[in-house]
Amino acid sequence: MKLNSIRVVLLETSHPGNIGASARAMKTMGLTNLYLVSPRVFPDKKAIEMAAGADDVLEHAVVVSSLKKALHGCQLVLMTSARPRELDLPGLTPEMAVIRMAEMPDDAEIALVFGRERTGLTNDELLHGHYHVEIPTNPEYSSLNLSQSVQVLAYEVAKQALVCPSELVFRKQKELATYEETEQFYEHLEHVLRVIDFLKPSNPKHVIHRLRRLFNRAKLEVTEVNILRGILKQIARYTEGS
Amino acid sequence: MKLNSIRVVLLETSHPGNIGASARAMKTMGLTNLYLVSPRVFPDKKAIEMAAGADDVLEHAVVVSSLKKALHGCQLVLMTSARPRELDLPGLTPEMAVIRMAEMPDDAEIALVFGRERTGLTNDELLHGHYHVEIPTNPEYSSLNLSQSVQVLAYEVAKQALVCPSELVFRKQKELATYEETEQFYEHLEHVLRVIDFLKPSNPKHVIHRLRRLFNRAKLEVTEVNILRGILKQIARYTEGS
Repeated sequence: MKLNSIRVVLLETSHPGNIGASARAMKTMGLTNLYLVSPRVFPDKKAIEMAAGADDVLEHAVVVSSLKKALHGCQLVLMTSARPRELDLPGLTPEMAVIRMAEMPDDAEIALVFGRERTGLTNDELLHGHYHVEIPTNPEYSSLNLSQSVQVLAYEVAKQALVCPSELVFRKQKELATYEETEQFYEHLEHVLRVIDFLKPSNPKHVIHRLRRLFNRAKLEVTEVNILRGILKQIARYTEGS
Repeated sequence: MKLNSIRVVLLETSHPGNIGASARAMKTMGLTNLYLVSPRVFPDKKAIEMAAGADDVLEHAVVVSSLKKALHGCQLVLMTSARPRELDLPGLTPEMAVIRMAEMPDDAEIALVFGRERTGLTNDELLHGHYHVEIPTNPEYSSLNLSQSVQVLAYEVAKQALVCPSELVFRKQKELATYEETEQFYEHLEHVLRVIDFLKPSNPKHVIHRLRRLFNRAKLEVTEVNILRGILKQIARYTEGS
């Protein structure tokens, strides 16, 4: 799947602000090909304002007079719609839709079609697509704004397509303390807790076990062990005299 | 995970339209608890206009004067931010964040925190959270609108909560400390470290930041906080005389 072989098609959009916000949503997720089928007002200042730096997407937008023209050359057409499906167009979640997209050859042209703000896509229009994509919503309030629908689909595409550097996902693993460094810390901790009389003579190990469990769960790093042992030394210094 | 135990926290939002659009984004995905920390303008007509039927979310929004107040009672705090992390707060994708949320006990209070439109969250603010959530974006244009970020996170929550409520079984944790219990521990810890002269006058926050990071990573349980504060009290008792 190549991001630049994916086009976002907005059909008869009423509010230019929604076109701008959709362009912004697209660009944040690496999508740049925008097709506008008979927009009510375009180009427009409000669209540029809402694009907030994604105005290049607007500049290169292709304005056409029919859905057919917008889908020219496409090999996979996905129709998004919040309307209850009366037709049995195969329905997909956004996630499943992106899997279908990823299964296509790399150079396949793909269209993601979004309907009118209020009325979505007609049944005739839905039949121009291979699949119907339905974003899961609150059954009591499914009023997703157009650009929010674009955002959700584009986000699912980006999850699949953008390189996710591993440090973005996982905590950068700093150098972890070795087993014996950690054990030395536990011994030191136990010693100091004895000195300040914190351990119950009846069950001295209870607190130590709880603390081991806590610190083991966190997986201590070398520098953390150093800070913690520094604190223990300082406590010892302050309590020596008493 | 219960949708009504999840709160969306917007910090110092500049544009009331963004608050309204966020309320709409939330409600489409079944989220209704909105906390506003020192919004610039609220309530406001533009917010109601952009909420488009989610005005009940705005009506019930809780306006507070500090992040601390917004996190009151929370046991899991997730900070979303597009800023490069200088601190190594554990980073999660939205998907992984929702898995962490689902692992919490059903009645656990959870906060999803979103920063200012232009400047996001400060490092100090990030340290009030257990995790940093990063929405994958186009590295060349990562300018997600606030309500779009809310939409993406809320959508991931909805995918987990609406689509497959019963299929996933997660490990339950012991009773976790609330946000304020943890914060009180950090205050207590900082106080005692000052008393024993452990903090460098040149950079007193460095050690505290490292320790917050360590303990946040471990997600402290109530009994652990009690043990740790018991140790701090005992240290204070022993150092009083010196």
